[in-house]
Amino acid sequence: MASSAEELSKELSLGSVRDSLIRQEDSIVFALIERSRFPFNPKAYRRSEDCGGVSPAKLFVREAEAAHAKVGRYQNPEENPFFPDDLPSPMLPPYDYPQIFHPASASVCVNKHIWDMYFNEFLPLFACKGDDGNYAATVAADLVCLQALSRRIHYGKHVAEVKFREAPEAYSPLIRARDTNGLMKLLTFEKVEEMVKKRVAKKAKVFGQNVHLEDKADGDEGKCKIDPSLVSRLYADWVMPLTKHVEVEYLLRRLD
Amino acid sequence: MASSAEELSKELSLGSVRDSLIRQEDSIVFALIERSRFPFNPKAYRRSEDCGGVSPAKLFVREAEAAHAKVGRYQNPEENPFFPDDLPSPMLPPYDYPQIFHPASASVCVNKHIWDMYFNEFLPLFACKGDDGNYAATVAADLVCLQALSRRIHYGKHVAEVKFREAPEAYSPLIRARDTNGLMKLLTFEKVEEMVKKRVAKKAKVFGQNVHLEDKADGDEGKCKIDPSLVSRLYADWVMPLTKHVEVEYLLRRLD
Repeated sequence: MASSAEELSKELSLGSVRDSLIRQEDSIVFALIERSRFPFNPKAYRRSEDCGGVSPAKLFVREAEAAHAKVGRYQNPEENPFFPDDLPSPMLPPYDYPQIFHPASASVCVNKHIWDMYFNEFLPLFACKGDDGNYAATVAADLVCLQALSRRIHYGKHVAEVKFREAPEAYSPLIRARDTNGLMKLLTFEKVEEMVKKRVAKKAKVFGQNVHLEDKADGDEGKCKIDPSLVSRLYADWVMPLTKHVEVEYLLRRLD
Repeated sequence: MASSAEELSKELSLGSVRDSLIRQEDSIVFALIERSRFPFNPKAYRRSEDCGGVSPAKLFVREAEAAHAKVGRYQNPEENPFFPDDLPSPMLPPYDYPQIFHPASASVCVNKHIWDMYFNEFLPLFACKGDDGNYAATVAADLVCLQALSRRIHYGKHVAEVKFREAPEAYSPLIRARDTNGLMKLLTFEKVEEMVKKRVAKKAKVFGQNVHLEDKADGDEGKCKIDPSLVSRLYADWVMPLTKHVEVEYLLRRLD
């Protein structure tokens, strides 16, 4: 834990958490635009004897996460691996990350949900049909998406921690009563969620446009590399619900 | 080689090559914006006994490229590893990529230049000072930049091939005379280069802006996450000269 409660509060405010969530939207939109360079490439997701019985995607993510682990990615409490078993130890001495989370709550992880959602629900809607053979570049783009989504969704721990600290008297009775619905209600702001859905759609439009030096009457400025409504839906159906799930799970352990 | 010259021409035209180069600008700008989430993080680039005498960056790129190689990244003639020695064999059966390049020219590779340029010249200008401990995420962002730059610069092989096919009578005497300067002159279009420099700066502005739902008088829309003039300079001083170097090296082998 950090040296003083005051220092902690400086690091963690509702404003800084919100700024980070907004910046992470950009990362997610960039990652999706880069994934859209490739068609669906179904062979990347089919189990294959060539890959020891797993899919090329799974093989790649496992090996890539091992490389990340060696240089210390998962020492940062904000980062969660998709395949935590058998990860190699970090080769670098540990960095002194600020310890923001309550120890009993730090371990909340929904990466299995994120993996299934991304590959089984989102990607079939998002990727255009086809196979261009670029399986490695495709699954590398998938990993960037997965890592950005995972970081964003587990940022729910920050949200929960800062909200709890601002109003422990509102949360504590619900936590003690294990009132999941009550907590979910307290954490839900429909107006804010509507704004986020609109903003990520706008970001998809702005970042997915074709930029030209001059305005062209017959140009392709109106074309967008990704479907803004699908980015909105990604947030509405998966990112925000999973984030709130993380928040509730975090809070349920917050008084342990 | 593909089955007919006609098929090849369909795949490879000056228009399709130009479209790809323009799309790759977006990838490079996105990658730079994502790298800018982190400060310079000098420890990521210092040789360390902990990493077996290499830097964490080198250790990570070598291990990550091994993961890419296993799922076949370097079977695509457009992709060149930074550390080609001792890469594992691909585990997937080979994909039938279109064979566009002249066999003797296909091996041209300037990744060593790109590595040195990126880490020793560009990054110290680009990254803000500081150390936030996120070495793994930082070098992963570096690898995305390096791969995007390498793909873009080696796309010079496509440029050279399509230009050669359109005017073999102009290039062949210079190639036979090993006239590097003459080839460089023939490949240089200053007006186009000026346009590219302006366009990448504009992309840095558009993609690096803070997107809000409403126009705010006191907003931070004017702020850009990266310096557009530095992206321009990256292209002017390194990307375009290295691309032309690839083009000349490719052409010098084109009649072998």
